Amino acid sequence: MSNNSKDTIYIGKKPLMTYVTSAIIQLATQPLVTIKARGLTTAIAIDVAQVVLKKTHPAFQIEDVRIGSEALVASDGRNRDVSTIDISIKRTAA
Amino acid sequence: MSNNSKDTIYIGKKPLMTYVTSAIIQLATQPLVTIKARGLTTAIAIDVAQVVLKKTHPAFQIEDVRIGSEALVASDGRNRDVSTIDISIKRTAA
Repeated sequence: MSNNSKDTIYIGKKPLMTYVTSAIIQLATQPLVTIKARGLTTAIAIDVAQVVLKKTHPAFQIEDVRIGSEALVASDGRNRDVSTIDISIKRTAA
Repeated sequence: MSNNSKDTIYIGKKPLMTYVTSAIIQLATQPLVTIKARGLTTAIAIDVAQVVLKKTHPAFQIEDVRIGSEALVASDGRNRDVSTIDISIKRTAA
């Protein structure tokens, strides 16, 4: 999989539907889109994926879900591990 | 996989390490343990899985991560969909 930013959506603090819309737009031209999040926004990433699937049913499906952790330097200078999630969505085979 | 409650850990509002300890204890006798959560606690489920793997490295690994959604009746009587996550952890093949 290429690491092109066009096929990746990073979940931040915008409203849920912002990411849902971005994902659906990208899936119109890309074969696979990956939704990435870390920390508490991992829960939002799952919501985004579920809303995308529901709104476009049955056009797309979950390809893969990966979880992991990443070392971050917190504002107090200490290392903290945060959990990450990557959810890949692809077009359902016709 | 059997649906025995002994091999499933539901994430609630207890401290993170409660679930980490339960998972490690259950993995001592079960071949596979599944961590389940819904809504905002899905983020905690990922944290629990990551801490279990880190504390026991390299004894266990992620077998599978599944995401989905469940219909709930909210306290105002309306139907709401909540996102769910199931993370299965198994012993690393020797």
